[in-house]
Amino acid sequence: MHLYRSHTCAALRKSDVGSTVRLSGWVHRVRDHGGVLFIDLRDHYGMTQVVADPDSPAFKVAETVRGEWVIRIDGRVKARSEETVNKAMATGEIELYALEIEVLSEAKELPLPVFGEPEYPEDIRLRYRFLDLRRDTLHKNIVKRTQVISAMRREMGSAGFTEYSTPILTASSPEGARDFLVPSRIHPGKFFALPQAPQQYKQLLMVAGFDRYFQIAPCFRDEDPRADRLPGEFYQLDLEMSFVTQEDVWDTMGPMMTSIFEEFAEGKPVTKEWPRIPYDEAIRKYGSDKPDLRNPIVMQPVTEHFAGSGFKVFAGMIASNPKVEVWAIPAKTGGSRAFCDRMNAWAQSLGQPGLGYIFWKEEDGKVGGSGPLAKNIGEERTEALRVQLGLEAGDAAFFVAGEPVKFYKFAGEARTKAGEDLDLVDRDRFELCWIIDFPFYEWSEEDKKIDFAHNPFSMPQGGLEALQSQDPLSLKAYQYDAVCNGFEIASGSIRNQSPEAMVKAFELVGLSQADVEERFGGMYRAFQYGAPPHGGCAFGVDRIVMLLTGAKNLREITLFPMNQQAQDLLMGAPSEATPTQLRELAIRPIPPVKKD
Amino acid sequence: MHLYRSHTCAALRKSDVGSTVRLSGWVHRVRDHGGVLFIDLRDHYGMTQVVADPDSPAFKVAETVRGEWVIRIDGRVKARSEETVNKAMATGEIELYALEIEVLSEAKELPLPVFGEPEYPEDIRLRYRFLDLRRDTLHKNIVKRTQVISAMRREMGSAGFTEYSTPILTASSPEGARDFLVPSRIHPGKFFALPQAPQQYKQLLMVAGFDRYFQIAPCFRDEDPRADRLPGEFYQLDLEMSFVTQEDVWDTMGPMMTSIFEEFAEGKPVTKEWPRIPYDEAIRKYGSDKPDLRNPIVMQPVTEHFAGSGFKVFAGMIASNPKVEVWAIPAKTGGSRAFCDRMNAWAQSLGQPGLGYIFWKEEDGKVGGSGPLAKNIGEERTEALRVQLGLEAGDAAFFVAGEPVKFYKFAGEARTKAGEDLDLVDRDRFELCWIIDFPFYEWSEEDKKIDFAHNPFSMPQGGLEALQSQDPLSLKAYQYDAVCNGFEIASGSIRNQSPEAMVKAFELVGLSQADVEERFGGMYRAFQYGAPPHGGCAFGVDRIVMLLTGAKNLREITLFPMNQQAQDLLMGAPSEATPTQLRELAIRPIPPVKKD
Repeated sequence: MHLYRSHTCAALRKSDVGSTVRLSGWVHRVRDHGGVLFIDLRDHYGMTQVVADPDSPAFKVAETVRGEWVIRIDGRVKARSEETVNKAMATGEIELYALEIEVLSEAKELPLPVFGEPEYPEDIRLRYRFLDLRRDTLHKNIVKRTQVISAMRREMGSAGFTEYSTPILTASSPEGARDFLVPSRIHPGKFFALPQAPQQYKQLLMVAGFDRYFQIAPCFRDEDPRADRLPGEFYQLDLEMSFVTQEDVWDTMGPMMTSIFEEFAEGKPVTKEWPRIPYDEAIRKYGSDKPDLRNPIVMQPVTEHFAGSGFKVFAGMIASNPKVEVWAIPAKTGGSRAFCDRMNAWAQSLGQPGLGYIFWKEEDGKVGGSGPLAKNIGEERTEALRVQLGLEAGDAAFFVAGEPVKFYKFAGEARTKAGEDLDLVDRDRFELCWIIDFPFYEWSEEDKKIDFAHNPFSMPQGGLEALQSQDPLSLKAYQYDAVCNGFEIASGSIRNQSPEAMVKAFELVGLSQADVEERFGGMYRAFQYGAPPHGGCAFGVDRIVMLLTGAKNLREITLFPMNQQAQDLLMGAPSEATPTQLRELAIRPIPPVKKD
Repeated sequence: MHLYRSHTCAALRKSDVGSTVRLSGWVHRVRDHGGVLFIDLRDHYGMTQVVADPDSPAFKVAETVRGEWVIRIDGRVKARSEETVNKAMATGEIELYALEIEVLSEAKELPLPVFGEPEYPEDIRLRYRFLDLRRDTLHKNIVKRTQVISAMRREMGSAGFTEYSTPILTASSPEGARDFLVPSRIHPGKFFALPQAPQQYKQLLMVAGFDRYFQIAPCFRDEDPRADRLPGEFYQLDLEMSFVTQEDVWDTMGPMMTSIFEEFAEGKPVTKEWPRIPYDEAIRKYGSDKPDLRNPIVMQPVTEHFAGSGFKVFAGMIASNPKVEVWAIPAKTGGSRAFCDRMNAWAQSLGQPGLGYIFWKEEDGKVGGSGPLAKNIGEERTEALRVQLGLEAGDAAFFVAGEPVKFYKFAGEARTKAGEDLDLVDRDRFELCWIIDFPFYEWSEEDKKIDFAHNPFSMPQGGLEALQSQDPLSLKAYQYDAVCNGFEIASGSIRNQSPEAMVKAFELVGLSQADVEERFGGMYRAFQYGAPPHGGCAFGVDRIVMLLTGAKNLREITLFPMNQQAQDLLMGAPSEATPTQLRELAIRPIPPVKKD
């Protein structure tokens, strides 16, 4: 027989009854039922119940074993009696009568329990991550993560993509976040950078004539830790295609992602035909370029109903500034003064002056609007609003006014709040869409100049001619995001592969041709030697896995995460370098300035 | 019709004749045959011949296009006349009669030709890697590389392994090479290291209860560039299994590798049953722990034939030192004075005093040994040697004498030289084997102490008890290599998962328990909480791809390699950091010491 096991802990069935087998695994727990010991033996695959009674030759050893010891058990497979069959367990029809137990590895007293899902301090969990990972939920999340990635590779392969690994020791990338630097020993004073994304390499691959690239790509950004961002590294499903329009990217990746989501959605519905929503429309309807489409609320412009109305605040704003609009957030089933007041208080808690509302109720067989706003604008306008918004008695609408560019985010938050508080959001589904036609440039209030709104390597719609002739802030880009349930899960674009258009695009944000050559020399050079039209996108693997597992924290889907202070408590990183290392790298840490 | 193409450049067949299609690609070359232009249009998939005669509406544009321009062509598919059919091309039965040509991207004059396989300076190739990668050989090598890796993933999945990504920003690893360091911004004065291998993480995964791990793992060593090693990063097929013996690793990975090799061997035979050769035996038979088994020469000990013989040099050495042995290198078909003298001269060119030999020829119907050595030891001993070595007239044998530990490497080189020069090596096959039972420790002449011969985390055969009771230098480890055609393609071991044995093993090389806790704290801690027996290995992806493509240089199988000065000439890395970056990282480059 094999030295450690003839079966895994998930393998034995009723058909094995009578055979002598060998299992190895961790002692999940030991129970003493009137002198008979029951050991739940656990491995990666599952669990098997082991029995040792005082007659068993293994009883003496069985009495000594403790939770999380690793043991090897030889035993005879027995059918469980009918009342002890456990249908929830794959091995629930049998138990193993222990004949011999060997202790392979003992365990000291555990610093955190492996059993159940108790709340435990993050730092202990990370220091003893090898124990934390034995917990059922985390173990399953990690396995699901690997399955999702494996499905991505499978589907990309089926769609004719090839996985290429791009360098990890490379030059500073232009994504705009902070780079991790790696000192070069051979070139003292110089540094490599870890890639923020393989953006330039994947474009160079297209210029090199490889057609459909993808990579489960490690990406690195040295940003301050945040709740929704682990320090250090993260993974993207990065892809690029040659000789394509943006429709090709959507037609390829949308159905593929639907099918991957469906594979892991455990029966929850997944959008089949992804809506393609222009950025401007998303802002107007949802107040966000990452709309949660599970929320049925769609905002509507209702400026005309307030222009010249008795609600002087709005009417005055509209009269004094042609950019002012009023947007309505219709809230089905929200038609109570209590709910409307709660929304108003919530808005004030965010520093807003308040949130105007009307709610409708039926009195004496007649539907009428209530609340101060309804009073001010009068019955006719109130009814016109109700009709436009398609509301009924029991419903409400909230109103925001001003310049949309200034209020749309708040309006979007109010939409989310109303949808969630009223339970209008169907949480058990995955709603996917493309947000398209993003602006190419945006105004940077900080730098008092225009800047790239997204990827500087994207193609502006209209190309070089549009760059030369149109108001830059009116330009759209062939730039798109994929959004799921309110989270951006991908971002991409058709690239600007014309050297002239590239120079012009950068010129408008104040960078000269020399700057372009210095910063993106490889790519600028490449575009002068026959560059195919190309485009692609990158999906956030971590975010997709979080959506599919329902995990609320990146640490619940990451194998060996750092803590929020950017430390690896398990391996003890970062740590001090030796004097030899520093001398070889020709760098010297600058001691911190002492503060008195 | 699609904006860029209805077909790829490899798609059109005779059945498409008559249809109007759209292709996009690179102009591979343009030929003018008596006023008719022939354009070979190339993309990732293949090549199509395009024709434009002076009547064609596309002729005017066709006249302007040059090599490596990217163009879009609309045209009508025509059958080629019988005498112009090109059977070597997938599209060789048709040509495309151009109706319209659009230039998508022009190309400047090329700094290196894409056509053919000319010798070109490395640095130009790397600076213009996007052009170099368009060359047919390199393009195919890179695609084959991706296919090999994809096959590895497929096979590992079928064998029940799961791919887990381990962190890239981590702590110094103990593989012994130099680490790349990454300064921590959040913890000034401290550093992350890039992993030399995921050794500790994969072992921690086993302790965490994940059973069969693998990863196509990026590994990083900051070593000086060498011909057979690119600076920076390389890839391993890294794997680990729980509850296994070393036989399980061999039984799992040997057949799998055979099948992967067969998939890409283009018909060359591949070893099915890998021999398992103990290290000591490999040294004695082949003079190497990386034997090229395509070479049929097997060395033999022949000390007895020289002890007390008339060849005083060897006889004297044998008499004065019981450790002295004489090994024979039998060389079938090497039986000429010219060849033996050439071998002797080669040995002297390596600084050896010479290489003793006997060669056999038939004279007057009798086989007899020739050469000074044969004369010295006499006919009887010469014949006894011939019989032991199984040689005949026309064959030779070479002899090395001394302490084997000092001469075995040279003997192995002589075996290789004889096998290759006599063309005994069958180059068109893949000979695979396991080298097993490596020594656990070795004597370090430099440090005058014993040191780990290989992986310090390997389990010594006999475990803790052997560590406590045996001469350390006599200990073998559960440590093995996979070897193909003279190259190490994998290394692995069963790990030492006992904390006590780990401390003892390190104690013997002079490291205390405190050292172990400090350097390998995560793993040492993990082993105290229930660690399963486990083991694995790591295959060198780059080496395997080199073997399968026949490439002689790592740059021929790597997408974006650095040059031998550890520079990325395409992206311009490493480069200087900005003052802001250095200040944020709290490091300062030390200016080089000026030499007068």
